[in-house]
Amino acid sequence: MKQVKLGLLGLGTVGGGTAQILQESLPEIERRLGGDVTLRIIHVAVRELNRTRPLEIDGAVMTDQPMDVVNNPDVDIVVELMGGTSLAKTCIETAIEKGKSIVTANKALIAEHGNALFQKAQEQGVSIAYEAAVAGGIPIIKALREGLAANRIDWVAGIINGTGNYILTEMKTPDADFAKVLKTAQELGYAEADPTFDVEGIDAAHKLTILASIAFGIELQFERVYTEGISQITAEDIRFAEQLGYEIKHLGIASRAEDGFSLRVHPTLVPKSVLLAQVNGVMNAVMVHGNHVGPTLYYGPGAGAGPTASAVVADIIDLVRAAHQPVADRVPPLGFGLHQLTSAPVLPIEAIDSAYYLRCFAKDNAGVLAQLSATLAEHHINIELLHQEPSSQNPEDATVVIITNQVKESEMNRALKKLEAMPAIDGEIMRIRVGALDA
Amino acid sequence: MKQVKLGLLGLGTVGGGTAQILQESLPEIERRLGGDVTLRIIHVAVRELNRTRPLEIDGAVMTDQPMDVVNNPDVDIVVELMGGTSLAKTCIETAIEKGKSIVTANKALIAEHGNALFQKAQEQGVSIAYEAAVAGGIPIIKALREGLAANRIDWVAGIINGTGNYILTEMKTPDADFAKVLKTAQELGYAEADPTFDVEGIDAAHKLTILASIAFGIELQFERVYTEGISQITAEDIRFAEQLGYEIKHLGIASRAEDGFSLRVHPTLVPKSVLLAQVNGVMNAVMVHGNHVGPTLYYGPGAGAGPTASAVVADIIDLVRAAHQPVADRVPPLGFGLHQLTSAPVLPIEAIDSAYYLRCFAKDNAGVLAQLSATLAEHHINIELLHQEPSSQNPEDATVVIITNQVKESEMNRALKKLEAMPAIDGEIMRIRVGALDA
Repeated sequence: MKQVKLGLLGLGTVGGGTAQILQESLPEIERRLGGDVTLRIIHVAVRELNRTRPLEIDGAVMTDQPMDVVNNPDVDIVVELMGGTSLAKTCIETAIEKGKSIVTANKALIAEHGNALFQKAQEQGVSIAYEAAVAGGIPIIKALREGLAANRIDWVAGIINGTGNYILTEMKTPDADFAKVLKTAQELGYAEADPTFDVEGIDAAHKLTILASIAFGIELQFERVYTEGISQITAEDIRFAEQLGYEIKHLGIASRAEDGFSLRVHPTLVPKSVLLAQVNGVMNAVMVHGNHVGPTLYYGPGAGAGPTASAVVADIIDLVRAAHQPVADRVPPLGFGLHQLTSAPVLPIEAIDSAYYLRCFAKDNAGVLAQLSATLAEHHINIELLHQEPSSQNPEDATVVIITNQVKESEMNRALKKLEAMPAIDGEIMRIRVGALDA
Repeated sequence: MKQVKLGLLGLGTVGGGTAQILQESLPEIERRLGGDVTLRIIHVAVRELNRTRPLEIDGAVMTDQPMDVVNNPDVDIVVELMGGTSLAKTCIETAIEKGKSIVTANKALIAEHGNALFQKAQEQGVSIAYEAAVAGGIPIIKALREGLAANRIDWVAGIINGTGNYILTEMKTPDADFAKVLKTAQELGYAEADPTFDVEGIDAAHKLTILASIAFGIELQFERVYTEGISQITAEDIRFAEQLGYEIKHLGIASRAEDGFSLRVHPTLVPKSVLLAQVNGVMNAVMVHGNHVGPTLYYGPGAGAGPTASAVVADIIDLVRAAHQPVADRVPPLGFGLHQLTSAPVLPIEAIDSAYYLRCFAKDNAGVLAQLSATLAEHHINIELLHQEPSSQNPEDATVVIITNQVKESEMNRALKKLEAMPAIDGEIMRIRVGALDA
């Protein structure tokens, strides 16, 4: 039986999960590979050599020097699961130079350095597979790059951070607020001690960068993703949205416009009739709209040892199957040949068209609504839905909630500036974009 | 630029859609293929040569003799979109003998004759791609065979017939019943004049046969699928189910048991909390549970020119990429090598374990409930939920609705026989299986 020899960088949650699958499910995997090929982990780099581990990897050399794994001439495929963008990058670069293909779950590395890494891999005739980098166990990279290859992708919108979705879901329970729910999430291990990465949308922006590139065939442009977190969302916003027929979800959205592309991560009102609105807890889901297929959705666990390792091992199997396929014939890393990427620009957030949810505190007199709608009308903004009730904070004031029609964000910014200057409006106006996902 | 030459059998809905994609989206597809390969339809077989068509295929030879296309030595890939299991089968067999790879959307052909066709294709070193045969535009075959390849699949449950799902969805509107909704579906073109194929679950059974084989690595066994249609479902059943927290969906279910596999198509109560329950109208969705990834779901349009052709063209692109890959290295047609399929049996429906929804008319006296539950208890069947109300048909009678615990179907059959023999029970008892899809 032919052995494909794997070198593992990292034996944490995902690395351990990968080793476990390769142990538990090897007979099933061999059956998939035709019965004459097997996979073997022969070299593993860990941070601390002397820690006891739940899993023994039979016959594998353990080291705390990742470069030893990369430099091991017997290693066919380097599986990078240590994370980070510095040592991981060096290891992958060296592995590519040595002619080894790579499997990685490292979304930050791909989003920030993928362009150069893919170029280098192409020059050396090796592959970089990264299904596990986006939405964990959901085979969304494969669906976009291959399953929907006949389509011009119009837009992608996804719940691609489980922590954020857990928080927004839990904020619907009575008496919950952001701080309280975040604390529970941290206790349950769903959120890190420093939750910034998840809660402020940076993790989602990494994943969106990747989704956008393979959807449209554009270079990875992480630095151009507009990113807004969920820490400003109140339980009241969630309740108001619900009354108006929406759920608030933290979405990564990549869409095609006439003069470029829009890449953004922000809280979004999703109509309840759209399946994406029904995705709760730590689960992920990505909606993809193709010009021929129409709307499709891919749902599953976006994190955790088993799901993420499921994607890592699927990539390994793909690489084994592709071993005798010329690299030029393989699915290119971004779905389109690197020299075939389009250079249409990523537009600033001010250039997008969107409907908006606005929530403000107003002095409770009849004139305010008239002023408010007149000011919006000056900017060609129509009120589609309006809800008013006494403010929970000051019974003298009213809380006014509005859903507008679709307008240019720059226009909305100008209108908001004027509204916030009105003496009858108390404090800042809360603004959340509404997703037109039923299109 | 290298040309891959396609021969098209059939220019109906899906054939026309395929030709249209290859016309409209060719630049995007060429960009995916690296810019040095293009696709061209050179030969098309239609039923009537003299009909005017909305679409002209530039430079393609038109014929009403499908075998002419198959025998054309210039055709690289035969795209079979004419349907049926006799002429289509002969055409595909001949094409394989001539060393051509096949793309087909023909679920009946694959489900009923796939074993022999795949064997023949393997011997001739060509591929048969059939993504379009299941769930239209959803890349579910690819997800199962490749994306989830690291998993032992525990079960698959899908809404894989849009007509049936449209009918069940519309039956929730006031005053709707099966006959009325079916008529509307026929008027809208969602259902055929003879709706048997869709409504009685035969179409779904074809698709489930395929899903089960690629999930578990077993031979295609269409004749062993237990199939039950939706024509017996009443609007009242849908309402009762809803009150108890369920939606009724027509599911294809393939599951792994200790001593074999269960393959079945039948109406199923799905807990509302499961995303599958929220899939409405003509849309399809397939839930897949893998031992490592957990639950995943794939949603999209299951029929129509654009969606189905999207899958057909994706298959063509895959075949073009695989042109220089040895067939032994390609993903095998059923996900596992043909000589690696397992022979564990498909179990009869009597062997499954399931919870049940029971609905009966009972003479409205206190003793009936006691007798009913005593009889169930004799067969170790517990009542988990019970709802009783005056019968809409006879106010003297009561309608009793029960959700039971999980029991063996053979045990349930014996209990139902006894219950139906009770003088206090009026007529047949309606029995619908409850899906345990949150596991």
